Amino acid sequence: MTMTGNGIETMDGPPHEAELLVDRSRRPEGSTVDVGGVSVGGREVVVFAGPCAVENKRQIIDTARAVRSSGAHVLRGGAFKPRTAPYSFRGLEEKGLELLSAARNETGLPVVTEVMDTRKVEVVCHYADMLQIGSRNMHNEVLLEAVGQTQKPVLLKRGIGATIDEFLLAAETILRQGNQSVVLCERGIRTFEDSTRNTLDLSAVPMLQRRTHLPVIVDPSHGTGHWWMVPSLAKAAVAVGADGLLIEVHSNPEDALSDGGQSLRPEVFDRMMAELSAVAVAVGRACGKTEVSTVVEPILT
Amino acid sequence: MTMTGNGIETMDGPPHEAELLVDRSRRPEGSTVDVGGVSVGGREVVVFAGPCAVENKRQIIDTARAVRSSGAHVLRGGAFKPRTAPYSFRGLEEKGLELLSAARNETGLPVVTEVMDTRKVEVVCHYADMLQIGSRNMHNEVLLEAVGQTQKPVLLKRGIGATIDEFLLAAETILRQGNQSVVLCERGIRTFEDSTRNTLDLSAVPMLQRRTHLPVIVDPSHGTGHWWMVPSLAKAAVAVGADGLLIEVHSNPEDALSDGGQSLRPEVFDRMMAELSAVAVAVGRACGKTEVSTVVEPILT
Amino acid sequence: MTMTGNGIETMDGPPHEAELLVDRSRRPEGSTVDVGGVSVGGREVVVFAGPCAVENKRQIIDTARAVRSSGAHVLRGGAFKPRTAPYSFRGLEEKGLELLSAARNETGLPVVTEVMDTRKVEVVCHYADMLQIGSRNMHNEVLLEAVGQTQKPVLLKRGIGATIDEFLLAAETILRQGNQSVVLCERGIRTFEDSTRNTLDLSAVPMLQRRTHLPVIVDPSHGTGHWWMVPSLAKAAVAVGADGLLIEVHSNPEDALSDGGQSLRPEVFDRMMAELSAVAVAVGRACGKTEVSTVVEPILT
Amino acid sequence: MTMTGNGIETMDGPPHEAELLVDRSRRPEGSTVDVGGVSVGGREVVVFAGPCAVENKRQIIDTARAVRSSGAHVLRGGAFKPRTAPYSFRGLEEKGLELLSAARNETGLPVVTEVMDTRKVEVVCHYADMLQIGSRNMHNEVLLEAVGQTQKPVLLKRGIGATIDEFLLAAETILRQGNQSVVLCERGIRTFEDSTRNTLDLSAVPMLQRRTHLPVIVDPSHGTGHWWMVPSLAKAAVAVGADGLLIEVHSNPEDALSDGGQSLRPEVFDRMMAELSAVAVAVGRACGKTEVSTVVEPILT
Repeated sequence: MTMTGNGIETMDGPPHEAELLVDRSRRPEGSTVDVGGVSVGGREVVVFAGPCAVENKRQIIDTARAVRSSGAHVLRGGAFKPRTAPYSFRGLEEKGLELLSAARNETGLPVVTEVMDTRKVEVVCHYADMLQIGSRNMHNEVLLEAVGQTQKPVLLKRGIGATIDEFLLAAETILRQGNQSVVLCERGIRTFEDSTRNTLDLSAVPMLQRRTHLPVIVDPSHGTGHWWMVPSLAKAAVAVGADGLLIEVHSNPEDALSDGGQSLRPEVFDRMMAELSAVAVAVGRACGKTEVSTVVEPILT
Repeated sequence: MTMTGNGIETMDGPPHEAELLVDRSRRPEGSTVDVGGVSVGGREVVVFAGPCAVENKRQIIDTARAVRSSGAHVLRGGAFKPRTAPYSFRGLEEKGLELLSAARNETGLPVVTEVMDTRKVEVVCHYADMLQIGSRNMHNEVLLEAVGQTQKPVLLKRGIGATIDEFLLAAETILRQGNQSVVLCERGIRTFEDSTRNTLDLSAVPMLQRRTHLPVIVDPSHGTGHWWMVPSLAKAAVAVGADGLLIEVHSNPEDALSDGGQSLRPEVFDRMMAELSAVAVAVGRACGKTEVSTVVEPILT
Repeated sequence: MTMTGNGIETMDGPPHEAELLVDRSRRPEGSTVDVGGVSVGGREVVVFAGPCAVENKRQIIDTARAVRSSGAHVLRGGAFKPRTAPYSFRGLEEKGLELLSAARNETGLPVVTEVMDTRKVEVVCHYADMLQIGSRNMHNEVLLEAVGQTQKPVLLKRGIGATIDEFLLAAETILRQGNQSVVLCERGIRTFEDSTRNTLDLSAVPMLQRRTHLPVIVDPSHGTGHWWMVPSLAKAAVAVGADGLLIEVHSNPEDALSDGGQSLRPEVFDRMMAELSAVAVAVGRACGKTEVSTVVEPILT
Repeated sequence: MTMTGNGIETMDGPPHEAELLVDRSRRPEGSTVDVGGVSVGGREVVVFAGPCAVENKRQIIDTARAVRSSGAHVLRGGAFKPRTAPYSFRGLEEKGLELLSAARNETGLPVVTEVMDTRKVEVVCHYADMLQIGSRNMHNEVLLEAVGQTQKPVLLKRGIGATIDEFLLAAETILRQGNQSVVLCERGIRTFEDSTRNTLDLSAVPMLQRRTHLPVIVDPSHGTGHWWMVPSLAKAAVAVGADGLLIEVHSNPEDALSDGGQSLRPEVFDRMMAELSAVAVAVGRACGKTEVSTVVEPILT
C-alpha cells in the first residue's frame, strides 16, 4: 500500500493475530471439541462418515451401521442440501433430520448435518449433535453468528476460494459469539487443475495447527471428487497430522442422488479404515479399530 | 467421468442450458431492468456510484450530490457491511438505510444497497430501490431465494471463486422464485496475481452476454483495489460492452472507514465520467453527460 | 518470513525496484521501440496481425495483404511452433521464415516471429524484424539472455502462471544483456475459469505502465481463445491504454493447422480495425486507418 | 467448442491417450528408473536430498555425508541455478558439477543436478547420474528433446502453472526421443493461497500413477517453502503413495545462498527419515533405514 495523489490507500485488516480468540497462543496445547461424547483434537483420529445426502430410512440406517462397524465415530448426512443449480435434489429437509436421529438411536453414533439458513438453526440443533457450515457459506457472516450463539459444536468447512486468513476469521466470528467448539475442515480449493474436483490443500493442516488451537480435519471426498483416490488422500491426511477425516460413504454409490462418484462403498471404506489405523500408529496416533495397547511410537533418533 | 469398479461416477449437472430462465434464447434481444426509473440494459451505460459504506449524513449527501452532478444514475452505499474479520466496521445498519433514503430525496437518485440476511430483506426493500447480493453471498441459496420473492430489482455480484456457470445458476435461483429483474456484476476473481486485489475478468462480459439476456455491469473498484487504475478499467469495461459500472466514490477517501484505497475522489470521478462518455460514443452507446444528439456511430466498413 | 528454531527463513528477492533497468523512473516519459520502422509506445496503437502459424505461401501472402489493407502495422506468423504435445504441427521452420520474408517484401510490413531455441536465434534474426519469446519460455533464462545479446527488438509474452513481478524480471534479464528494445505482451493467465482459454488480465496494462517504461501490448486471441470475443476485448485493451495489439488472423480459419477457433477472418478483422479507430480516438490515441487530423481529445473537466 | 459463423473452433489436442508412450496401459505394472544403481519406482521410497545450490566443497561434502548417514539414496544440488531475477546467485556452474562429483566419490551417492541450457547438456551428462528439468523449463520443448536424446535418467518437475495433461505431454516429449527413464516430480502449483510458497498437489500422485507407468516423486521443500512443515508433508507424500521425495537439506540453512527458509538442518532431516520409515512400513513400502525384514503389511480386511 502506497500513499498517492488521490489519498492514502487503506485496507481494514484483522487485529493483531495474537489478539484473536482462535490464535494458538490462547491454548498452546490445542483445543478438543466434544461431539456427542466423541473428542476431536486428541490422540484419536476421528472419522466422520456417511452419505452426501440422507435419501431414505434404509439407506441411512444401512450406511450408519456399516460405517460404525468399520470404526467410524460420527455419522454425517445432509438433510438440507446446498445446490448450485436450483433444480437439483435439495434434500429431505426435516424428514432427513428425523432419519438421522433414527440412525443415531440405532447405532449410537453422534450426527453432524449442514445448516444453511438462520431460520433453521433451531430445528437442526434439536436433532443434530454438531452443525456443519458448508463451503458455500463460509463467508456467510449472519449464519456464522447464528451458530455462534448456540451450544452445539460447529464443523466449519473452508470456502472454495478462501485463504487461510479468511478461514480463521470465519472461525473467529463464531467464537466471538460465545461458542468455542469449532472444528475446521480443509476440503479442497479451486485452482486451474481440473482433473480433480478441487485441489486438496494438505499444507493447510500444519499451517492451521501452527496458527490456531482449533482441531483440523480433512475431507478427501469433496477434495478430489474421485472415490478411487479417497483412501490415498485419507492416509496422507492422517500422515500430515489431521485430527480427523470427513468421508462420503454410500451403501449403493451408483444410485446416489448426489456425489455418487466420490462416495465409497462400505467394503472399500472398511479396507481404508484398516489402512488408516496403520498410518495413524506410524505417526503416534490411533484411528478406528486400532488396538490402542499395541500402538508403537515412531522411533525418533 | 469414467465408470470404475466401485461404481459409476455421477455429478448432478444443470438442466440443458436452453431450458434455464436466464438463457439468452429466452430473450435474444436482451432484458432491461428498471431501477427506480433508470433502465439498465439499454443504449445508455448506467453508472452506479457512491461510497463503500454510508458513514454519516454529510458524507452520503455530499457524495450523492457530487456523483449526480458528474452524471451518475444510481447511488450506491453500504448500510449492512459484510466483514471478513468480526472486528471491522459493520455499517450503520438501519440508520444507514435512512440516510440513503435521505440522499435519494435530496438528489433524486435511486439507491442500491446490500442485503446479507434473510431477516433484513423486508426492511432493506422498504428503503432501497435495488437489493445488492454481495460476492460473499453469491452461493447463499437461501438469501437468493428470499430476494427472488420480492419485487425489487437485484444486483448480483459474482463470487470471488465462482465460474460463469455458477454465476448464471445463482441468477437462475432468483428468477426461479418469480423475480426477473436481475443485473449481473463482474467484480474480479481470485487468482495467483496479487498486485491487484482481484483479477477483473472482462472476458466475462461478452461471455455472459452471449449466454444470458440479463444486463451485465462491471465493478472496477473491487476488481482492482487501486483507485488510480479504476478510470482505465472503467473505460475498458465500457469498450468491452458492459451495460453499466459500479464505482466507489468517497468525498474524502483518506478518511474512509473502509476501502478508501479503491475509492475515487469526486473530482477524479468527474473527469472519468467525461472520458467514459467519449468511449461510450465510440462503441455506439451513451454514458453520463454525453450530448446524445451528437453521438456518432462507429464507421463499420 | 519469521525466524524460527531451525534457522532464519530467507528468500532472495529482487534488488530495490528503482535500481532495475526496466523501472519507470529510468524513463518517466516511457520508451518507444522501433520495429522495422514502426514505433511501438507512441501515440499510435500498433497492431500486430497474422496467422498463428505460417502454413504455405498463399496463406501467408493473402493474410499479409488483407491485414495491411485493414491498417495493421506488423505481420505476425509462427515458423517454429511451440507444441504442448509432441505430435502436433511444429511449423515450417526455416521454410516458414523464408515465406515470412517474402510476405514482407510483398507488403512492406515488418515481421515478428517466435524463437524457442538459442541455436536458432541467429537464423531467426536473419529473417525477422522482431523476435518473439512465447509464454512457455518467459522463464527460460538462457533464451532471454540469448535474445538480449542481439540487436533485434523483442516481443516478450507473459508466462501463463507468471506474476507481474516475474514478468518484469524476465524483461530485466533481456535489458541486462544490452538489448533495450523490449515490448511486453499480456496474453492471459491461467485461472479456475474455463469458459475462456485463459483469463485476460487487462489490469496488468496500467500496472505495468506504472512500473516500467517499456511498451505494453495485449493479445486477446490467446487471452480468450474465442474469435467472436476478440473484437470486444481488443477494444477494451485500447481503452485501458495498451500500446498495441497482437491479433490472430487467418485467411481461412476453418482450415487452420492451429488455433483456428481464435483466429479472425479478414473481413471480421477489417470491421474490428474500424471500431478500434473510434475507441483509440476516444482515449486520445490513433489506430489503423484513423484520420489523425480529425482526432478529438476527450474533454477533461 | 462450437461451430459459429466465423468458422469452426478447433484446438489441436493430444492423440488418444492410450497411444502415448507414457500411458499406464503400456506398462500396467509400472516402470522403474535406475539412477546410478538406485531403483526408483519399486518398493523402496527413494529419497533425493541435498542443498538447493552447491556453494563450496565443505558445504556439499558435509551435507552429502549427513544425508547419506540418515538414509538418503541420491544427492541433489544445483550447479546451474535458474533465477527469477538476473542479479541473484547463479550457481557455481562447472565448478559446482566438479564438487558434486567429488561428493559422489566421497559418499557413493549418485548425483542429480539441473540442466537449463541445451548447450550444457553434454557437460552435465559428464558429471551427473541424473538430469533435472526444473519447473521453469517444463514447457521448454527444445530442452526436453535434448535430454530425450541422452542416455541419462531425467527428473522432470511439474511447471508451476501446468496441468496434469501438460505434465504428461512434457514427459512424452522426452520419451519420444528415445529416453524412457523419466521420473515425474510434483512440486506445488501456483494458486491464490499465499501462506505457502506453492500449493502442494498431493492428489497429483494417485492421478499420475493411474495415467502413467512412470515413477512419481514429491518435493515438499519447494511445495511449501517452510522448513518446519516439510516433515509433515513428506510423511503425507509417502502415505499417498509417492515413489520418492526430493528434500532440501543444508548443513547451515541460515547461511544458505538460496532457499534457506525451506531447507532442513541435518538433524531435522535425520529425525524426519526415521518418521518416514514408520509411515512407509504402514503403507507396505520401505524407506531409509527401515529394517526390511521387520516390515509388516497393513492388515487388509
